[in-house]
Amino acid sequence: MLAVPSAPKAICRPSFGVTNALFTHFLPNFADKYTHMDRAKLTSQIFQKKSFLCVGLDTDMRKLPECVLGVEDPLFEFNKAIVDATADYCVAYKPNLAFYESMGSKGVKAFERTVAYIKERYPDQFVIADAKRGDIGNTSAMYARSFFEENDVDALTVAPYMGRDSVEPFLGYEGKWVVLLALTSNAGSADFQLTADADGERLFEKVLRRSMEWGTADNMMYVVGATRGAMFADVRKIAPDHFLLVPGVGVQGGSLHEVCKYGMNKDCGLLVNSSRGIIYAGGGDDFAEKAAEAAKALQMEMAGELHAAGLA
Amino acid sequence: MLAVPSAPKAICRPSFGVTNALFTHFLPNFADKYTHMDRAKLTSQIFQKKSFLCVGLDTDMRKLPECVLGVEDPLFEFNKAIVDATADYCVAYKPNLAFYESMGSKGVKAFERTVAYIKERYPDQFVIADAKRGDIGNTSAMYARSFFEENDVDALTVAPYMGRDSVEPFLGYEGKWVVLLALTSNAGSADFQLTADADGERLFEKVLRRSMEWGTADNMMYVVGATRGAMFADVRKIAPDHFLLVPGVGVQGGSLHEVCKYGMNKDCGLLVNSSRGIIYAGGGDDFAEKAAEAAKALQMEMAGELHAAGLA
Repeated sequence: MLAVPSAPKAICRPSFGVTNALFTHFLPNFADKYTHMDRAKLTSQIFQKKSFLCVGLDTDMRKLPECVLGVEDPLFEFNKAIVDATADYCVAYKPNLAFYESMGSKGVKAFERTVAYIKERYPDQFVIADAKRGDIGNTSAMYARSFFEENDVDALTVAPYMGRDSVEPFLGYEGKWVVLLALTSNAGSADFQLTADADGERLFEKVLRRSMEWGTADNMMYVVGATRGAMFADVRKIAPDHFLLVPGVGVQGGSLHEVCKYGMNKDCGLLVNSSRGIIYAGGGDDFAEKAAEAAKALQMEMAGELHAAGLA
Repeated sequence: MLAVPSAPKAICRPSFGVTNALFTHFLPNFADKYTHMDRAKLTSQIFQKKSFLCVGLDTDMRKLPECVLGVEDPLFEFNKAIVDATADYCVAYKPNLAFYESMGSKGVKAFERTVAYIKERYPDQFVIADAKRGDIGNTSAMYARSFFEENDVDALTVAPYMGRDSVEPFLGYEGKWVVLLALTSNAGSADFQLTADADGERLFEKVLRRSMEWGTADNMMYVVGATRGAMFADVRKIAPDHFLLVPGVGVQGGSLHEVCKYGMNKDCGLLVNSSRGIIYAGGGDDFAEKAAEAAKALQMEMAGELHAAGLA
């Protein structure tokens, strides 16, 4: 989301009618300019750290401890301290855009600075922009450009409701990932995601099956909520190899053990997210220390699960 | 999306555990502080102007005419000229956030300035932020705060995939609207939205029916793509009274006459959007003039449809 486009002017302003999808192919050296986090690298990080923890940076201005409120960019300073304290215990970070956008252009800058900080200091971390975007093709292409080119995140969450041409523009970036909503952790997920068609296939299953024609296990993951326990087995029947991003452990009540029991595969195949349970573990001057403790406790639980599964 | 929260500090920072939904009720004089555009006012504008045109401000930095590129905030200057040229012919504006976010914090500022300009100079216009948001409850509440409190738009497009608790936080604002995706205009809409359940109910029909339990025709509209022609009749069977926001006329190929034939109700009940067909009608110094001509042509066609339906 930097203000100044990085490509030369002639490329920035193609003639009318040139599509954005085509435009991305004109970008010079995309593969060299942007970071890559492929499946092998992610898996190697997981086994090395014995952790598949993703720390959710749902940083809410109204919940920050007093001690960071005085600085110029409190959202970023808080994130920086959380990242420094937890990086040893996790393999991924997931800032949710809602929390940054609600603070206006200053918030957007804090998001940009946070991503840049993680990329520079902890290049092995997988950075997921949790934005749940999805629009008609040319508009999704704009979002893709924003997140993958201007911000260089590794992955973006995408909503599937609008179908194939709303998702595909995000899949054209080598080394970048789409994390598609399949079965979410909230109560409302039952409203539509569990609806079965005439053949008994539920909507989340159709989303998995269809979208596997658009992307592969090397550029697509799925959101499956930790509150869904045994349904992980149904997900694995359709998508045995894909990584799953799993929110809902902690405050939302999902069980890590159940998730692992039904959802783990030979590469681990899980990124389990905790947001509030880690970043607000403490509310005072020791907030970073408390976050580290909470992250470490989850990491140790994860090491146990990996060991039990014969993976560590 | 202003950087400085407008509520007093004690209200900005409730103690941990106070939900955002609760928080919105603490806001002082929301009803006085923010603009309202209720159904009666919108309908009255439509009949007065003989227009149900919504101009889509999908303002793409790479498509701007040379003549606005030299100024400090080209996105805003372009929008300002387009709004001044078209306001007589339309009743609504719909900036799509993707185009602004792709320009980073500067783009977000241009969006904020555009909304503020319309609100100040053309207070009878209905402003829709096309953002297609939707997340778990506390996160949707953050988005609602961002769009309805910080920016004071009249309506926000929302994606239904995550169900009731992802939509309801947007419905707690008096005088503000949710525009829920039902049947979109793109090819991919067929992937999931047309899937029928065991009882023959298609997903978009279920979205309509279920969501009518969450909101009313006074605070909820639906997106139905103009490319869907006769399916408007199916939508009207379930939602006879709701306004429909209709993209897809123009570049995407939908027919205004078909939309009116199957979709119009006694209040008109339609907001038909055109983006590229208006704002890029001309590509040179006369871009605003050409936009006015394109908007006027659509308005005249709409006046004819209203007349044919006995509404004007």
